Order: sequence, then structure tokens, then C-alpha cells
Amino acid sequence: MEINQKGVLLVVSGPSGCGKGTVLSHILEDKENYSLSVSFTTRDPRPGEIDGIHYGFVSKDEFLLQIADGNMLEYTEYCGNYYGTPQSTVNSLLEKGVNVVLEIETVGAMNVKNIRSDAVLVMILPPSYEVLENRLRSRGTNSEEDITKRLLRAKEELKALPEYHYCVINHEGRSHEAAEQIRRIVEAEKHKIERNNMILNHFYQ
Amino acid sequence: MEINQKGVLLVVSGPSGCGKGTVLSHILEDKENYSLSVSFTTRDPRPGEIDGIHYGFVSKDEFLLQIADGNMLEYTEYCGNYYGTPQSTVNSLLEKGVNVVLEIETVGAMNVKNIRSDAVLVMILPPSYEVLENRLRSRGTNSEEDITKRLLRAKEELKALPEYHYCVINHEGRSHEAAEQIRRIVEAEKHKIERNNMILNHFYQ
Repeated sequence: MEINQKGVLLVVSGPSGCGKGTVLSHILEDKENYSLSVSFTTRDPRPGEIDGIHYGFVSKDEFLLQIADGNMLEYTEYCGNYYGTPQSTVNSLLEKGVNVVLEIETVGAMNVKNIRSDAVLVMILPPSYEVLENRLRSRGTNSEEDITKRLLRAKEELKALPEYHYCVINHEGRSHEAAEQIRRIVEAEKHKIERNNMILNHFYQ
Repeated sequence: MEINQKGVLLVVSGPSGCGKGTVLSHILEDKENYSLSVSFTTRDPRPGEIDGIHYGFVSKDEFLLQIADGNMLEYTEYCGNYYGTPQSTVNSLLEKGVNVVLEIETVGAMNVKNIRSDAVLVMILPPSYEVLENRLRSRGTNSEEDITKRLLRAKEELKALPEYHYCVINHEGRSHEAAEQIRRIVEAEKHKIERNNMILNHFYQ
């Protein structure tokens, strides 16, 4: 009897400026155990983009068919094109024992949570609103209007916090620590009773 | 803003022969972060037993008063004496950031779960029933009747498995691994949203 080694479906969100990208890049360095899911899109490939690596490039008809078949874990329309995460791809990775990372906003995350009770939702947070504001300001590339917009947007995103399972704080210069905390959450989740039906069945014989 | 560093109330059960004692001894080596709770008892101290270290030695009247006050997380009567876990002791350790380990049987664990929604219930398991049986046999000190009794008792204990939050398998010669898995579960639990009201409040301002 072994603990279920299927991968964990990890949904990661976090407001703009929380340093989510850096934290996730640390996690994804472990290619054997972690993978981003490859999204489907109906837009044309840009130079250098490879089908099945950067995106699965599909026609609009095919995409709509996948939605109708319930194969889209979440999807969105942007500038007339569809983007979405196909369940089939996610499942085949999970079966291989790979933890699948979905980096999505809170609306998408709530959809995934509704469809997949096995999804683990983690919110990456800045140490405080003040730090978030300072980070957005120090980038220097954002106008005052843009900063105000991003902060409002962050507050909006963070309204979903109680719906998440875990939170991790990304302190200044400690993104490796936040990544390690997420990895530990994933490892702990594998020991959850509800993920270990085989063990339950064995000890119920 | 920091992740809540209060200790976690860790309830650990496991059938006789699963190697629970060894696994817990590894965890408790980390005296700074883990502690067994000191039980109260109404029996007389044995030579060498120190009040407040091995047990809190109290009168039967005092013990019954503690039950009436709702201060007993769980208790049991054995050979005319009471044994129990006082909430006050547990809470003061948790406040100090110490994770408190309760090693109790499933009935007591269910009581704790009902009283304390923050308790984390972990079941330590043998790799299989066959291994459990072999372990009990190889001790050599148990009669066939005793082994049968213990196995039946194990099956009885394991009926509570679906009520536990996590399971950890103690493989032959890998008790350190099981201990590490429990430590990771405790660390992950500290990131649970419901344990981090301060963070929730901050980002809800």
C-alpha cells in the first residue's frame, strides 16, 4: 500500500505585484514533478510558437466543441479569441504523477473549484497592501492612474481569498521560501484521506 | 503580515503494531516545535513521576470539576482512575507556537474533532494488514489469541479512517520518512486560510 502518487491540480492566483511569476518559476524548475498545463487557443500561432508546447492551436469550431463536451476546465474570450484549459491534458499529466499548475485569476479559479473538488487553491499574497503599492510604484513603468487601477483590481481579486484553501506570503527577497511552502502544501495534500481510496478500501476489507 | 505561527493541535492515532511510537519519538525530538500534552490523572504518582511533567496529578473532585467546566478535551476512566487532556495546557502551548501532539485512540480522537475544529487528525498506517499481522507475530511475545484480538481491534480502529484528515504509511525501516511527512502536513496546515484570520482581515480592509 502506498500513498496515492497521482499529481495534484494546483490552482495559483495572486494580485498583480505579488511576485507570483517568480515563485512559480522556482516551482516549475522541478520539471519532473511540476508542469504548467498547456492551454488551447483559437488565435493564430506567433512566430516561434509551437503547437502543443506554447499552446494547443485549434479552430474556433473545435474549441466550442470542447466546451460543449465539458472538456474545458476554464476558458475565456479575449480580443475575439478563446483561451482555455482542457481537462484531458490536465488529467493525463496528473495520472503520470505530475503536479499541474494553473496560474489563473480568481474567476477562473472559482470555476475550476466548482468542477474539480480535487483542485488545491493557493493564493500568493504580498506581505501587505502597502508593500503591494510600493512594488507597483517602484516598477516605475506604471502611471499613477495605472497603479490606482491595479490596486483596485488587487482588492477585487482578494475578495475571493476565503474561497481559497491556502495562502502563502511572498516576502521581499524570499520567493524561494514561498515556493518551498507551496511544494510542502502539495506533498501534504497527497496524504489527504479523500485522495487515498485504495488505502481506505484496503483497510475496510 | 505573517502566516499564523500558532501551534497546530495534532491528533495521532494508529493501530497497535503500526510503529506509531517510533514515528512520534522522531517528531518529538524537535522539542522547540513539538510537545506531547501533559495529561491529568487521578491516580497516585509512581516513584520518579513528577507532577506537571509526566502527569498533572489531581484529585478526583478536581478532575470532575474540570470535566464540568468543559476543560477536558478528552478523558477516559481506567481501573477506577481518570486520565484526560486539559484544554488549558494545550492552548497555552499552542499560543507559544508549539505544535501539540495528542496520541489517542479513535474514540478520543473523534471527541477532540467534535470539540476542536482546528485539530488535525492523522492516522499512521502499516503498509497493509498482512504487514501488521507479521509485525505482531514477529514480536514473539504475543499468544495466537492475543494476535487475533489485536488484529480485530486494529480493524475496529481503522473503521474511523474516513473521519481522519490525513494518513501516513509507516513502511518497514522508514519511520523517519513518516515523521517528515507528518511535519510537512503540520507546516502546510499553518497556511490554511481558516487559520489566518489576521491576513484575511488585512486584505479585506
